[in-house]
Amino acid sequence: MYRTHTCGELRLSDKGNTVTLAGWVQTVRKLGAAITFVDIRDRYGITQLLLGEDLTSQLEQNPLGREFVLQATGTVTERSSKNANMPTGDIELTVTSFKILNKSAVPPFTIQDDTDGGDDLRMKYRFLDLRRNAVKKNLELRYAVNRAARNYLHQQQFMDIETPFLIKSTPEGARDFVVPSRMNPGQFYALPQSPQTFKQLLMVSGYDRYYQIVKCFRDEDLRADRQPEFTQIDCEMAFVEQEDILNMFEGMIKSIFKEVKGIDYNEAVPRMTWEDAMWNYGNDKPDIRFDMKLLNLKKPASVYTEKADQAALINGADFKVFDEAETVIAIAVPGCSEYTRKQTDELTEWVKRPQIGMKGLVFIKVNTDGTYKSSVDKFYAEDRLKSIADAAGAKAGDLVLILAGAEERTRKAISDLRMEMAGRLGYRKDNEFKLLWVLDFPLFEYDEEGNRWVARHHPFTSPKPTQIETMINNNPVIENAAEYLKHPYATIKANAYDMVLNGNEIGGGSIRIYQRELQEKMFAALGMDKEEQLHKFGFLLGAFEYGAPPHGGIAFGFDRLCAILGGSESIRDFIAFPKNNAGRDVMLDAPATIDEKQFDELQIKLNLKS
Amino acid sequence: MYRTHTCGELRLSDKGNTVTLAGWVQTVRKLGAAITFVDIRDRYGITQLLLGEDLTSQLEQNPLGREFVLQATGTVTERSSKNANMPTGDIELTVTSFKILNKSAVPPFTIQDDTDGGDDLRMKYRFLDLRRNAVKKNLELRYAVNRAARNYLHQQQFMDIETPFLIKSTPEGARDFVVPSRMNPGQFYALPQSPQTFKQLLMVSGYDRYYQIVKCFRDEDLRADRQPEFTQIDCEMAFVEQEDILNMFEGMIKSIFKEVKGIDYNEAVPRMTWEDAMWNYGNDKPDIRFDMKLLNLKKPASVYTEKADQAALINGADFKVFDEAETVIAIAVPGCSEYTRKQTDELTEWVKRPQIGMKGLVFIKVNTDGTYKSSVDKFYAEDRLKSIADAAGAKAGDLVLILAGAEERTRKAISDLRMEMAGRLGYRKDNEFKLLWVLDFPLFEYDEEGNRWVARHHPFTSPKPTQIETMINNNPVIENAAEYLKHPYATIKANAYDMVLNGNEIGGGSIRIYQRELQEKMFAALGMDKEEQLHKFGFLLGAFEYGAPPHGGIAFGFDRLCAILGGSESIRDFIAFPKNNAGRDVMLDAPATIDEKQFDELQIKLNLKS
Repeated sequence: MYRTHTCGELRLSDKGNTVTLAGWVQTVRKLGAAITFVDIRDRYGITQLLLGEDLTSQLEQNPLGREFVLQATGTVTERSSKNANMPTGDIELTVTSFKILNKSAVPPFTIQDDTDGGDDLRMKYRFLDLRRNAVKKNLELRYAVNRAARNYLHQQQFMDIETPFLIKSTPEGARDFVVPSRMNPGQFYALPQSPQTFKQLLMVSGYDRYYQIVKCFRDEDLRADRQPEFTQIDCEMAFVEQEDILNMFEGMIKSIFKEVKGIDYNEAVPRMTWEDAMWNYGNDKPDIRFDMKLLNLKKPASVYTEKADQAALINGADFKVFDEAETVIAIAVPGCSEYTRKQTDELTEWVKRPQIGMKGLVFIKVNTDGTYKSSVDKFYAEDRLKSIADAAGAKAGDLVLILAGAEERTRKAISDLRMEMAGRLGYRKDNEFKLLWVLDFPLFEYDEEGNRWVARHHPFTSPKPTQIETMINNNPVIENAAEYLKHPYATIKANAYDMVLNGNEIGGGSIRIYQRELQEKMFAALGMDKEEQLHKFGFLLGAFEYGAPPHGGIAFGFDRLCAILGGSESIRDFIAFPKNNAGRDVMLDAPATIDEKQFDELQIKLNLKS
Repeated sequence: MYRTHTCGELRLSDKGNTVTLAGWVQTVRKLGAAITFVDIRDRYGITQLLLGEDLTSQLEQNPLGREFVLQATGTVTERSSKNANMPTGDIELTVTSFKILNKSAVPPFTIQDDTDGGDDLRMKYRFLDLRRNAVKKNLELRYAVNRAARNYLHQQQFMDIETPFLIKSTPEGARDFVVPSRMNPGQFYALPQSPQTFKQLLMVSGYDRYYQIVKCFRDEDLRADRQPEFTQIDCEMAFVEQEDILNMFEGMIKSIFKEVKGIDYNEAVPRMTWEDAMWNYGNDKPDIRFDMKLLNLKKPASVYTEKADQAALINGADFKVFDEAETVIAIAVPGCSEYTRKQTDELTEWVKRPQIGMKGLVFIKVNTDGTYKSSVDKFYAEDRLKSIADAAGAKAGDLVLILAGAEERTRKAISDLRMEMAGRLGYRKDNEFKLLWVLDFPLFEYDEEGNRWVARHHPFTSPKPTQIETMINNNPVIENAAEYLKHPYATIKANAYDMVLNGNEIGGGSIRIYQRELQEKMFAALGMDKEEQLHKFGFLLGAFEYGAPPHGGIAFGFDRLCAILGGSESIRDFIAFPKNNAGRDVMLDAPATIDEKQFDELQIKLNLKS
């Protein structure tokens, strides 16, 4: 061993002891010819070394640089000027001998919390970036979440069972990464998008509580903050209903809060239907750290919900923007009635950005003096403005923002605007955590391109028990594309649930289909013929014939969960060796070309589009 | 929840309670029209259900079959005839109502410890095979080993840090599995053969104790009991020397013995040099549950060791088989002097099998009456036979077996023969565990085909500190192929170690190179030019310039470790979904063909050899 102690553990109680430390040079401060202070750093902390005249003069020939690896032996001594900000700040090591274990070139950026390195540079030199305390804390948190999840699941009699990585390609929605098989020329393995079918087989096999913290792979065009490989806490239970899963995994997340963050999250996690989430928040993963519910002034007759809009509040004013819009939604923003023209103009520009895509923004200022001021004054008299503002829940001093346009885009836009305004108002606190279950998702989504149904969750999700008949007894074919919402399949709700934390989906799952007939009906509804069903999922259909128990499960996005617990929006900061948005590891310079010999052995060749 | 209790937990103390169980029908025994006994099984055990006349008559219409999924509610009652072999054997459930949750076709084999299913059938229906108690026990043991390893490493301040699966292809020895990148056409990721370079980078990053229980991938021609994907307990430490690693991981294995098997493995793990292992046991992973050391009667002058053979014992007898052989090795087999002609003939056939490949077998019977009887009586008088037998350590009643032939084959053959005889004598007990460290491996192995050096462990293993100079100061080129053993590189020992359990290598590792110059020298010694070094390992060489600490590590073969602890020689029994020897998952029928669309998107095509 190159050391007797770490750089984080020496205290006054060690005074007088002879110890050896090893670590990296953080700083070197020379005080004249007689004294050099060296801060030496390792995973556990920083300790100050004091080098006297002899050793200082040794450094003349062999100067120490930042990030040199140093081994130093000496006596623990009390500091004359203590540093209360460092756990080791009461002592220093009066060095009697030292050895440079390895030198370091000058790092391309500083190894500090506020580094001067840009993102690209830090990724290329990720092994140096990982030395920064900020990144180390993230990986430590990740490990703590890992431990807490495992411990909870173990206590609940879950078993970690490894499932294979080299499986069969069954692309459904997302693309598979594939792996050519040398031993089976012309054939390919696929990397799992999740262990979904395997965990279901394990339920058929009787392992009634399964978990795994496992890498999954999706070959998707990477949006910001997506990774081609990501980690899931993957769980499945047999002989359960939805309620059992919700309770079990509420328990897990609360246990993680307690273990990792020291937070006693005692209140019950609220539950919200998908319909209410869309209606009140404009999306299916509402951030409920703050209220700011939407006012649905107008919605198309065909929309998914039977809830009534409040069109009377805006109708008959001859305001074409509202009259011609499919959807009009308002939101009251607390305390912003005194926004200047410049500020409302800036907000208007914000909603017009391509990412939001609205044509404009209507506002009503609910002034503290009881008056109302609006960008649509000439269409709406003050009493009508008041009615709208009241319906939106605005109080004196609030600002009501109204968007109008096509249903889907407008709903998403007002949801984004809600998040944006909450952010500006400081409502999105990193250290406040609000969990939410979103339930009763639609089982199917309409695919306009194919005029067919696709599975909203995945093809293994069961319908609500009361709607199994609806599914079995109706033909999935959509005769009239324009009226797809009137098809019985549009009304079927899934036995599915998402866990939402601070406006992010951190986990999702469902009670599964476990009857062969229903599974076949589901595959058929998604446009898979018998042959394709058997080719892709014959093993699962087969398994359902040999005593499949009722079962269900959930998978948590481990990277995302860690990021949110760490108060960050970026998962990349919580992955030791992440890829960039082009799916590249810029440190390794991967992917890369392979040898002719490899092509030859795999019996494949390139077929590049020119 | 479909149940109030599991099928393993009800006891007499639950008598009188109303409970609900759910599980699989193990057996149905109908006693006339009045009573049916049903054994219901889940992961936790088996409980006997008692169905009275009403329910028995219900079964007339809807008979229960093996593996049906059943939910039953009733009262816990005391059995009239108790079964002491079952934890639930004191009670039965007097059923008041039941529901068939799912039916089952007749399974293709019985779900019992001694199943009638052959290997192929069991693999195809692995989801049924996994229901068997024998397989379940294996997976439970695997999970227990996983837990024990994690807990120990956590206590020792190791951190689980995930490393990427989509990396860069750097084939060294074993072949990589590769993954075409759709987003980077013409380029490929590789699946890791191990996280080797990443864990070394983590040491450079200051995470001084890293571990991971992680899947690794090797595209090798599969020998029996190899899997293309396998699991490692992968560990690395910084600021350590070999002694530190040996102590730390001796501790881990002992902790696993304690936690998983309840065994207090208190004695120190013996250490043996690679040279002694080869000399005394004929291989580098000797099984030391029994003694039976080899007697090296003759070895080629050129062989790796300077130990002297005992050729005087056999020379001058004009026995051509010995005189012309490169190597002659003997072993004393306890208590087998009374082997019949039939038995010695059978042994001779055994060593002549192609897997062993010897031309014949010489034996000396050390009879209990003090006489000696040998197959080479006419070349060796009794006193010479006695001298050989004595040197082999044979006692009265023992049988000395002697093999002669080419060095490598003969040494391997006598090692195999040693294991075979020990097996026949019952010396290889499943429940006896003997650990061993094998140390001081050669750093390089000679590659005859290329007349060059290859790394015996891997290119990141450091030479013994005292031999760094030998490596730096000598040219790796082998001028005279016939005398490669005289090249200075042949003498260099690696700072490497293997942990051996009952004759199996369960783990191996090394102290790593951490100096850029030495790493470059190593790559060059293996025939890699500068360009190739930078292309493949530029990131690692770069990292070594920024303060790389001394470090080393080890990786345990998790599948193998579990198999041995479970008393099995086959790792496949300890993997939930294993592949067969052709690398196929016969349940999934993978690998398989992929769609034209996938080829098109990946911009590759097949190039099958006709």
